[in-house]
Amino acid sequence: MKLNRKDILSIEDLTKEEIELVLKTAESFKEVSERDIKKVPTLRGKTIINLFYEPSTRTRTSFEIAAKRMSADAINISASSSSVVKGETLKDTAKNLEAMNPDCIVLRHSFSGAPHILAGLVKCSVINAGDGCHEHPSQALLDMLTVKEKLGRIEGLKIAIIGDILHSRVARSNIYGFTKLGAEVRAAGLPTMMPCRIEQMGCRVFYNMEDAIKDSDVIMMLRIQLERQNAALFPTVREYSKLFGLDSKKLEMAKKDVIILHPGPINRGVEISSDVADGRSSLILDQVTNGVAVRMALFYLLLGREL
Amino acid sequence: MKLNRKDILSIEDLTKEEIELVLKTAESFKEVSERDIKKVPTLRGKTIINLFYEPSTRTRTSFEIAAKRMSADAINISASSSSVVKGETLKDTAKNLEAMNPDCIVLRHSFSGAPHILAGLVKCSVINAGDGCHEHPSQALLDMLTVKEKLGRIEGLKIAIIGDILHSRVARSNIYGFTKLGAEVRAAGLPTMMPCRIEQMGCRVFYNMEDAIKDSDVIMMLRIQLERQNAALFPTVREYSKLFGLDSKKLEMAKKDVIILHPGPINRGVEISSDVADGRSSLILDQVTNGVAVRMALFYLLLGREL
Amino acid sequence: MKLNRKDILSIEDLTKEEIELVLKTAESFKEVSERDIKKVPTLRGKTIINLFYEPSTRTRTSFEIAAKRMSADAINISASSSSVVKGETLKDTAKNLEAMNPDCIVLRHSFSGAPHILAGLVKCSVINAGDGCHEHPSQALLDMLTVKEKLGRIEGLKIAIIGDILHSRVARSNIYGFTKLGAEVRAAGLPTMMPCRIEQMGCRVFYNMEDAIKDSDVIMMLRIQLERQNAALFPTVREYSKLFGLDSKKLEMAKKDVIILHPGPINRGVEISSDVADGRSSLILDQVTNGVAVRMALFYLLLGREL
Repeated sequence: MKLNRKDILSIEDLTKEEIELVLKTAESFKEVSERDIKKVPTLRGKTIINLFYEPSTRTRTSFEIAAKRMSADAINISASSSSVVKGETLKDTAKNLEAMNPDCIVLRHSFSGAPHILAGLVKCSVINAGDGCHEHPSQALLDMLTVKEKLGRIEGLKIAIIGDILHSRVARSNIYGFTKLGAEVRAAGLPTMMPCRIEQMGCRVFYNMEDAIKDSDVIMMLRIQLERQNAALFPTVREYSKLFGLDSKKLEMAKKDVIILHPGPINRGVEISSDVADGRSSLILDQVTNGVAVRMALFYLLLGREL
Repeated sequence: MKLNRKDILSIEDLTKEEIELVLKTAESFKEVSERDIKKVPTLRGKTIINLFYEPSTRTRTSFEIAAKRMSADAINISASSSSVVKGETLKDTAKNLEAMNPDCIVLRHSFSGAPHILAGLVKCSVINAGDGCHEHPSQALLDMLTVKEKLGRIEGLKIAIIGDILHSRVARSNIYGFTKLGAEVRAAGLPTMMPCRIEQMGCRVFYNMEDAIKDSDVIMMLRIQLERQNAALFPTVREYSKLFGLDSKKLEMAKKDVIILHPGPINRGVEISSDVADGRSSLILDQVTNGVAVRMALFYLLLGREL
Repeated sequence: MKLNRKDILSIEDLTKEEIELVLKTAESFKEVSERDIKKVPTLRGKTIINLFYEPSTRTRTSFEIAAKRMSADAINISASSSSVVKGETLKDTAKNLEAMNPDCIVLRHSFSGAPHILAGLVKCSVINAGDGCHEHPSQALLDMLTVKEKLGRIEGLKIAIIGDILHSRVARSNIYGFTKLGAEVRAAGLPTMMPCRIEQMGCRVFYNMEDAIKDSDVIMMLRIQLERQNAALFPTVREYSKLFGLDSKKLEMAKKDVIILHPGPINRGVEISSDVADGRSSLILDQVTNGVAVRMALFYLLLGREL
């Protein structure tokens, strides 16, 4: 079975069935990364371009490893070494890359909507690897895979997402995804961190962390982007941490078997304490492992031939 | 058949027969990039090093994709991450890379003549991917391929090259190439942009764009390098654009079926207007596609085994 | 036969037998890089991550070429493009990379001991590609291979290491290595360049270059790190060069058939004169060639399957 679409731009676009297909396919690819010989010939002769306009270790590496384990050729382009310094527009970069006949372009860009523009310009597949404050669909898919794997289902669960929802593409993708699969999503953070009309995305809003996590099955902590902290969303890091950081004391208010997610990189002692991040409830590293499997699945579903 | 030379350093060096061999070989490789499985095993086990001392998206990516589609191993080295920061000379870098037994080094360097120096130092093949204001032979080869493909021949054509001829390695390589294949090359630009003794390269000089393009079969626009514009070649960008930029009004003075080339990245609204760049006469993206084929051909002719 | 260890962190850790196994294995891999098809399928499906927190051409390229010639997938991560800019700790980077199931992480880091920390955190193999002023084991192994190849043995030889011993990870690894294989190591440099208690590492100390090289079989010149020269180890480069630089005049005091090593990149005219670096006694480029073979051997011994 194949996804009947060219691109993966957002979770908002995907149907419940499509999300489930990706998760099921990813599950079957997990085993490849556990083999002695971590490679399948499925995408031999395919060209995948990682076009990253923002720095990234884990996401770029995850996509690159996924491509190589599928035997595709992976080409990395980062903004600093590219024609971007010569002022080329995204459109021209896109058309030029397309002219080299890639099969897929994986795009990370600081502007929301950039992957949609790209997808409209090129015949090859486009995967959104994070665009501004909009979406990060492969992250949400790996989060859903991690929850499903651990708890056996997603429907009926309560998922608390804590932090700067407004600026988080991870939060946005996850709100769409978990809601579509029948979970209740709870968004918690300071009022300055909450998108207006967030209730229309289908989630409940909390301005108090305790209420949000009390009977939740999953707590997803968002990264506070200290390096971009010029928006003055909160008075001090210490104060934020006290209100919305997750430490063992706050964790006591949650269910015993709650699971904890974080998209990384984590700020230890800011949005999550070290004991919680490294504790038995944390699935942070499972998320990373599942990231490779999800990306292999996306490449397969977009580019793969029928078996 | 094989090129009977170790390196591709300039078009000036190549004979008409050698150029024709490259073009013919490139034509046969175009099909590989259109396949479902874009890969041939021809250069398996060959090591190709892309050594780029200047930033580049399209050229580096094009060489890398070409190498990978031929199944060679491609290694990228860019100046910023390299020993260059430790002040190593090009000679020492060359000898050190050679000691790792590469089969080919693709060099881009801001100093004219750097690839010739490199080629004299190493036993492996060297391809000039652009050196200072000197030559950019693979670009000229892809330009010739594009023209030949579209118009069926090169001999007897009139090729107008418009812009800063003096500082353009693309112009220099194309003047040599098209002249060797029997075309008439016309160079047009401000007097400050014209090399002295350019007539001895075998081309006609125009200081007026209209005269140059009037009955030309091909118009090749050069990039104005705004980011290096400290040489004060012209008073203002607007004035340059008015005199030597190509827009639909100037295009009316050209032949109906004229074709338009540009090495990219283009400055929309400066040397070329958007409607012309994206119009039906423009072959700018065909050039990029042909770039991969030309580079596959060069790798094959320099490194390939007889079939 | 296989190394019975997970990591290569230092020469201090290795036994004489282990060092000899690496050298013997490397000798057998040299031939692969001289073939027409420089590739063996041995490590197909293995993932090797080059994690470089310091700039490097030769070492990163050498590891990458070694990985690719063994058919492994090589992933490059450099500090500038990585999550390091977001302030992630080495531990978190390590655990995240591990979660993607690599088989080996090659780490270069400015902090001494960083690879040991990494190795303790991850299940996959770790190779130290240079850590601060501590060790650079693959460099010492290639140095030993070069000497053994040229002089037929290491036991009983006299090895003079000249320069800033204190800050040199190359020196430290070589002192351990050559001493273990039964050579006499002589360290020569200014008193400010000598570690305290260096005699306990098993080597003789000289503050005069002539005495150190007089009857030595090997002279290993260390790089003066001009770009880090804020420690004021010596008054002027010229004075250092006069005292401890190797030129043809000083070379006359050495044995006729002495061989000269340098880890590169060399500062011509500082620690070594050009005529000596390029002269018949110099094995500097053989070292680079042997570097690829040693790294292939390390990958093979750590990751390879029994034949």
